[in-house]
Amino acid sequence: MHPEVHLYEVGARDGLQNEADVVTTAAKLELLDRMAAAGLRQIEVTSFVSPKWIPQLADADDLVARLVRRPGVRYSALVPNLAGWERFAGSGLDVAAFFVSASESHNRKNVNRSVADHLEGFKPVAAAALEAEVPLRCYVSTVCGCPYEGDVPVEQVLALVRSLLELGAAEISLGDTIGIGTPRQVRALVEAVAAEVPLERIGLHLHDTYGRALANVEAGYEAGVRHFDSALGGLGGCPYAPGASGNVATEDVVDLFERSGVDTGVDLDALVDATSWVEKSLLGRPLPGRVYRARLGERERAQREEAH
Amino acid sequence: MHPEVHLYEVGARDGLQNEADVVTTAAKLELLDRMAAAGLRQIEVTSFVSPKWIPQLADADDLVARLVRRPGVRYSALVPNLAGWERFAGSGLDVAAFFVSASESHNRKNVNRSVADHLEGFKPVAAAALEAEVPLRCYVSTVCGCPYEGDVPVEQVLALVRSLLELGAAEISLGDTIGIGTPRQVRALVEAVAAEVPLERIGLHLHDTYGRALANVEAGYEAGVRHFDSALGGLGGCPYAPGASGNVATEDVVDLFERSGVDTGVDLDALVDATSWVEKSLLGRPLPGRVYRARLGERERAQREEAH
Repeated sequence: MHPEVHLYEVGARDGLQNEADVVTTAAKLELLDRMAAAGLRQIEVTSFVSPKWIPQLADADDLVARLVRRPGVRYSALVPNLAGWERFAGSGLDVAAFFVSASESHNRKNVNRSVADHLEGFKPVAAAALEAEVPLRCYVSTVCGCPYEGDVPVEQVLALVRSLLELGAAEISLGDTIGIGTPRQVRALVEAVAAEVPLERIGLHLHDTYGRALANVEAGYEAGVRHFDSALGGLGGCPYAPGASGNVATEDVVDLFERSGVDTGVDLDALVDATSWVEKSLLGRPLPGRVYRARLGERERAQREEAH
Repeated sequence: MHPEVHLYEVGARDGLQNEADVVTTAAKLELLDRMAAAGLRQIEVTSFVSPKWIPQLADADDLVARLVRRPGVRYSALVPNLAGWERFAGSGLDVAAFFVSASESHNRKNVNRSVADHLEGFKPVAAAALEAEVPLRCYVSTVCGCPYEGDVPVEQVLALVRSLLELGAAEISLGDTIGIGTPRQVRALVEAVAAEVPLERIGLHLHDTYGRALANVEAGYEAGVRHFDSALGGLGGCPYAPGASGNVATEDVVDLFERSGVDTGVDLDALVDATSWVEKSLLGRPLPGRVYRARLGERERAQREEAH
């Protein structure tokens, strides 16, 4: 059976790239395999960014070469520029992802370039990907607000979406990078973007900074979105701010949908096992995912009762 | 201007009653005053429960006697039985609150009585409150699911709501005690209960155990509910399970509504100050509220920038 919603797992890339300690390639391979084994069918593996920018992902080529792919899984990687594309092209991965911010200041802070220059630099990548028949997934960041500029007008998001579609984007992932959006805002945004590109090509990439990620997932679902980005255990929160929260946790999204009667195709228990392994073996600090934490508590209670 | 949604603050009672360490009466008085100063207009002060049951609230009589009331604030306390009512009657508080569970097993675990016996025991309390013209707020727990029985049929909730209305309940607070509810479930439940009692007398008491509290607040709002229970910083999580989460955080509810253009009448900065004081001076452990945590981070960044 085809799942009714489609999760796109970003924990291995977006999650680990912010970690203070570099995770070994072997550990990343195990993480990626646990994700696939849990039923996740879209997995972002790494980024072909310069190792100078993100040392945590410096092993991208080696990681991809050693990746044992599970059938039915679409593996992707970020491709920030032409140098990245050349590394991607030999990787055998399925989807190339590109990111650009809807706000000038955030884009400059991120890639040290204006939005226009960043798009211009992406043109040859997009052309090469189209030529190679590799689908392009384009992240649009700060769609609900910018940490430097505040409000981001919907029209600014729409103009960027149009540019990305012209360059050949197959999928648009709308990112509420700072988690500031409200359900109403998400609904209005999705309706506006859906006038430019069919709903089945729109994803939502929501952060839980203000606790509204699931409220916004629900609002997006009600507006017709069926693609959601998420990260195991909520990986991607800033490790220096305890309790601070980044990507919405995959377990939280899965449990919201499954309890609402919407099939995700994902095995929640296997996710919880994987996240528990990440906490204990990779990071040694608690992850912010709520369902993960609640499930651990349920398991402990069950064990105590069995022991009696 | 009248706020468009009405928050009912339970942090001082529902929040502190689960804390391992007893908080001093003086500290509780400061907490209650900070809540009122932040603009909260409905505050649950304590419970007139037997000190044997909940030692954390053993100072109820002393606390209430020393409470300096702010004008315009409705102060309430839990009244579990006739002995509790006698203590309440001399307190000068505005609202008497009673709780009963929609599931038999949960009610028995909680008060060691069947639902029917618990209601029977409440009858003289309700009669005395009506006679004294004290409004009764009735909590119905486990409305979205029971930790022992699993699903709780809506019809079971409705039957209990009808009984409580017959006893003279002025307000019904529907409690998702284990946080298991989904937006769809909350919407359906509110619609069913609204057929028994006008929406303006229905409140929602939501927990964030599975991260869905705000999604459920939003669903309740869309279904017409305008009364929401919440606790400063998310007080009320189990202190023994790091990251485990109890009541939805007041800051999270306030920020959701204010950013959606819905007035709450509450000053978010004052709430953050109060929660910061609770963390540092009362509990010495991080509270789970997301907006609180994010706001602290914003303040720290602003201070660092000023220092440059």
